[in-house]
Amino acid sequence: MPVGTLASVKGIPQETLEELGAQIILGNTYHLYLRPGVEIVRRMGGLHGFMSWPRAILTDSGGFQVFSLNELRKITEDGVTFRSHLDGSSHFFSPENSMAAQIGLGADIIMAFDECTEHPATRERVRESMELTVRWAERSKKYFEEHKHEVPWNSLPASPLPTLAAQNAARMGHPPSGDSTQALFGIVQGGMDRELRRESALRTIELGFPGYAIGGLSVGEPRELTREIVGSTLGHLPADKPRYLMGVGTPEEIAEYANLGVDMMDCVLPTRAARHGLLFTSEGKISIKQARYAQDPAPLDPNCPCRVCQRYSRAYLRHLYASNEVLAQVLNTVHNLSFYLDTMRRVRHAISLGEESTLSVVWSRPKP
Amino acid sequence: MPVGTLASVKGIPQETLEELGAQIILGNTYHLYLRPGVEIVRRMGGLHGFMSWPRAILTDSGGFQVFSLNELRKITEDGVTFRSHLDGSSHFFSPENSMAAQIGLGADIIMAFDECTEHPATRERVRESMELTVRWAERSKKYFEEHKHEVPWNSLPASPLPTLAAQNAARMGHPPSGDSTQALFGIVQGGMDRELRRESALRTIELGFPGYAIGGLSVGEPRELTREIVGSTLGHLPADKPRYLMGVGTPEEIAEYANLGVDMMDCVLPTRAARHGLLFTSEGKISIKQARYAQDPAPLDPNCPCRVCQRYSRAYLRHLYASNEVLAQVLNTVHNLSFYLDTMRRVRHAISLGEESTLSVVWSRPKP
Repeated sequence: MPVGTLASVKGIPQETLEELGAQIILGNTYHLYLRPGVEIVRRMGGLHGFMSWPRAILTDSGGFQVFSLNELRKITEDGVTFRSHLDGSSHFFSPENSMAAQIGLGADIIMAFDECTEHPATRERVRESMELTVRWAERSKKYFEEHKHEVPWNSLPASPLPTLAAQNAARMGHPPSGDSTQALFGIVQGGMDRELRRESALRTIELGFPGYAIGGLSVGEPRELTREIVGSTLGHLPADKPRYLMGVGTPEEIAEYANLGVDMMDCVLPTRAARHGLLFTSEGKISIKQARYAQDPAPLDPNCPCRVCQRYSRAYLRHLYASNEVLAQVLNTVHNLSFYLDTMRRVRHAISLGEESTLSVVWSRPKP
Repeated sequence: MPVGTLASVKGIPQETLEELGAQIILGNTYHLYLRPGVEIVRRMGGLHGFMSWPRAILTDSGGFQVFSLNELRKITEDGVTFRSHLDGSSHFFSPENSMAAQIGLGADIIMAFDECTEHPATRERVRESMELTVRWAERSKKYFEEHKHEVPWNSLPASPLPTLAAQNAARMGHPPSGDSTQALFGIVQGGMDRELRRESALRTIELGFPGYAIGGLSVGEPRELTREIVGSTLGHLPADKPRYLMGVGTPEEIAEYANLGVDMMDCVLPTRAARHGLLFTSEGKISIKQARYAQDPAPLDPNCPCRVCQRYSRAYLRHLYASNEVLAQVLNTVHNLSFYLDTMRRVRHAISLGEESTLSVVWSRPKP
């Protein structure tokens, strides 16, 4: 899932995302809550109508952002008090607030409000944090069940939305008078402790969600440990429901985690790296700012079918980056997203080959 | 002509410019000379190959940029010594240097090296400056005639260019072994003095160029004076050759100047204004940053067929701008360029109606 923090995958028009084959994008509740605010998005028909994106959207709970962005935060049983990174104003997120915000934003998949445990942490601290996340998951689900019909598109008949929003509501397949709701996913925490991860998984499954995420990884631990925790945690999650590993990773990693059984991932890496001139290619990583590319007439990646590799040379991309041209960010992001989405297409293809022809050599997927 | 200073119309991929119907864009010799440098562009097949733009390109002479960007410049009969705005390094532009640079950049239309007279200026100063421009035009033409076959595409057979550049050379219709050259336009100066403008025009025409530009306007003088000088100068320029008014203007102005007989114009206004959230619409100018648009579900311009107006709301564009999202610049620029190019299409349509049906009421064009 490409990350579109503020209802925009930075620099990329939605029609280009469609052309790239993005089926789902991620929005950040914390950022959207601050700008433009949930009510404005709701009145524009939710994120789909607001940003004119008819395909799927997932919003995070805001929890991770609050923990990672704010020095001045206070966590209680009730929720988290934090200060806006924009103007220092004080705000409060709780499971109920987060659900209300995410229902108002109207994404297709929304996330339970969790605490992302810091790393490293003592076992006692990890247990306390994991148990808080379980209690918050229960409160998230309770609020969601009581308010899930308050999605933006269900208010369409009462106050008919103007052209663009109505068109988008129609395009995204939500009948204005229908009773479709969102899918609320639970999140497994438990730090780097396999036993606590297992307990978190079992207790979250007991609450019952249509999909499960693995949170609290990629927080500074060694990659080998990430792999181990992902592998063991996946074994406790139902195979017939989506399993979402949050916040990863490199192209190699997403292929590897998919191989372990992960169905969904999100990461800022392809878009953020693009803005820093770091490009992923079938021949390895390229730092386009290097002088060695100044006169290189070759495409970025000779094996890439994206519009950037079909049209522009490394020399041109290097010039754009070195000259601080905005087009550098645009073209670099198009390529990196294309490379990531193409990687996942190849992963899916390999899985389908494995399932159809039982070629477990090509692709083996553990059955949990 | 959209302005693509550094071989990029800021934020807009070339395929989008094609989609918008841009037939010709402008590059700035001063900027390209500094970054990435003429030799790199030449080796990549000229600007066409370098930026992968098969349609027409015009480069300015660098004179205007040197005059307007640099405090530390020294003008002599020979040329202009100036300092780079990037690193303060010292450089020298003369008619010969400017021609060499523009031949190396390989645009389709290149401009004689002129002095853009400051405003206001005494009649004596304007005359001296105008006469210097005439002498520089003669030197520009002399150098061009002696070196015009040194265009990048003529060196293709000697050192065969790699795929992308060769493809672009082919797409732009320059046979690698052909003897096609560029078109060098002369520039009329003469400040705000109708008599000196007339003399400048006659002496430049006497030198003989395939097209003529009117320079030195839009330098701070009242709009009424611009119109008067444009109108009187056009009367001295041959109607069967392109007449190019440099550095204008608003949508109203470009329609008005076209009505006076101007064939070509360039201006940073549509792209620069877009970056500042100032948008041109059929219903007037819109400053999208205003809070009044925060919940406005309407398209930017209900009468505009561009992809931005067909898909996004004012509320979304306002959010992108207020949040400093790069997509704001991209979408705003697409719309403003679309509006400008559409204005010129309507101007051409009106001209063709007038010519075919002699409806001089619809469109009257003075015959010089």
